Amino acid sequence: MTKFEVTILGSSSATPAYHRFPSSQIVNYNQKYFMIDCGEGTQFQLLKYGFGYNKVDHIFISHLHGDHYLGLVGLISSMHLNGRGKELVLVGPPALKEIIDIQLFHSQTTLRFPIKFIPTQTDQPEIVYRNTEIEIETIILDHRIPCTGFFFKEIKRPRKIVKEMLEIYNITPDEIPALKEGHDYVIEDGTVVPNYVLTTDSPVPRSYAYCSDTLMITSFIEQIKGVDLLYHETTFLEDMLERARDTHHTTAKQAGEIATMAEAKKLIIGHFSARYRDLLSHLEECKTTFKNVELAKEGITFSIEN
Amino acid sequence: MTKFEVTILGSSSATPAYHRFPSSQIVNYNQKYFMIDCGEGTQFQLLKYGFGYNKVDHIFISHLHGDHYLGLVGLISSMHLNGRGKELVLVGPPALKEIIDIQLFHSQTTLRFPIKFIPTQTDQPEIVYRNTEIEIETIILDHRIPCTGFFFKEIKRPRKIVKEMLEIYNITPDEIPALKEGHDYVIEDGTVVPNYVLTTDSPVPRSYAYCSDTLMITSFIEQIKGVDLLYHETTFLEDMLERARDTHHTTAKQAGEIATMAEAKKLIIGHFSARYRDLLSHLEECKTTFKNVELAKEGITFSIEN
Repeated sequence: MTKFEVTILGSSSATPAYHRFPSSQIVNYNQKYFMIDCGEGTQFQLLKYGFGYNKVDHIFISHLHGDHYLGLVGLISSMHLNGRGKELVLVGPPALKEIIDIQLFHSQTTLRFPIKFIPTQTDQPEIVYRNTEIEIETIILDHRIPCTGFFFKEIKRPRKIVKEMLEIYNITPDEIPALKEGHDYVIEDGTVVPNYVLTTDSPVPRSYAYCSDTLMITSFIEQIKGVDLLYHETTFLEDMLERARDTHHTTAKQAGEIATMAEAKKLIIGHFSARYRDLLSHLEECKTTFKNVELAKEGITFSIEN
Repeated sequence: MTKFEVTILGSSSATPAYHRFPSSQIVNYNQKYFMIDCGEGTQFQLLKYGFGYNKVDHIFISHLHGDHYLGLVGLISSMHLNGRGKELVLVGPPALKEIIDIQLFHSQTTLRFPIKFIPTQTDQPEIVYRNTEIEIETIILDHRIPCTGFFFKEIKRPRKIVKEMLEIYNITPDEIPALKEGHDYVIEDGTVVPNYVLTTDSPVPRSYAYCSDTLMITSFIEQIKGVDLLYHETTFLEDMLERARDTHHTTAKQAGEIATMAEAKKLIIGHFSARYRDLLSHLEECKTTFKNVELAKEGITFSIEN
């Protein structure tokens, strides 16, 4: 099965604590590495977990709070100093470009590689990446400043031809694309051979949704319905519900409710406040509303399988 | 003796490697904590070595290459989130203010504490901090972009009164300030009592000079002559002399030559290139030109004594 996995580089919220780093993740889809968020120290974490600087060609920034992007200029500089030549695609809020440019300008750095910048907006979800295998769509979140999550969706593959059947029905190669798309086959005498006789279904597309930072909101539930793996922030526990609301964050109990409503197969919780040393309470509280949950932890890789 | 010590938080040059962090140091003078440079991850190092966020009231940034300041916005954010109310003084190149402001603006952060910004210039050395015990002066360095070092100098203390002598000569309290300044005492009958009979000399003022990043230059030698502790960058070894010159950096051998010319009592070398895993060659090469040298290493504290 094509590799589709998520490695946590940082699980902390605003201030780092207890060896937890600020937000960053790597999504590895079939050896293409997509970074989501890039908090301070992300380049150290990349080295620590063996990714190197130049595997990543796409970086997605959710919003412009420092714990989600302050590692970006350092990472870009290190890519530059390590001789990167290939394009880097950056997806994030419009002002991110200005923030990077001003810092490159004052350090008098002319990058040896091009950066393609794709600004996000928060009016409605939009596709920000697409290849033949996967597409990435923004998720509109509700934080104190404009913020988007990212929804990674495998593209439904064509149906698989059952080779023996091609011989039986004397089907020529030029008929195959139509069969892969699900069309029935019509023999010269008019007999219809149903598609399911000639092909088997391709695997159910897998998906991953990253939702941080946000108030508990339900507006994206339909968009991610049935998601295989959901990462949702749980900055606080339920006894801090008021503070969660004031700061536009979510509690562990609420994250479980979102996962249940979204019919997620599995939930990862992260973006833990520095006030919590031990995270078992987050896990226990979340399990009251959603059973299949795990804690985000630096260096852990979650594999997404059907 | 009044505490005067330097703790290394980061010893690496541009790209972090082998668990070495980018440049940052804490100078503790009599429980006042001055930070010099603030590379990415400095806030993690502060926590690791027990300084906390709010001990530091003054931060000095040498120049606007990322490995010397990219930890600053994260540190300022953490100070803010940890309830800091007292002023933070920032000393650095003029554009630093713009870089910080734009990031606070886009994160919609209104700091709960004031920042006093003191811009540095590179025409000539200037005093950027002074209290009754110590003053800090810039050192003009020669790097690819405007860059200053920082020279910490104890202020010569007044002479110490020998109390028994006050009684012998019936000296009244209002005469004491003049004696502390070194004046002789004149008895009513015109007899002169030399100052050295009435006072003892105060300790020789101590000093610390921070020189990073720079081409090997001698223009600041007179300024720091006799310095007790000199930190000088040694990004490269002598076999990379040409690259050191091209990039406006210094070799280990050259740093030793600078220390010898400056009649430094002790030298710390740092800002090591990521190309070097082992730093013993730096130490050995430097010792060919200056004996009393040590490697900068994260967490090590150097005490400055007479």
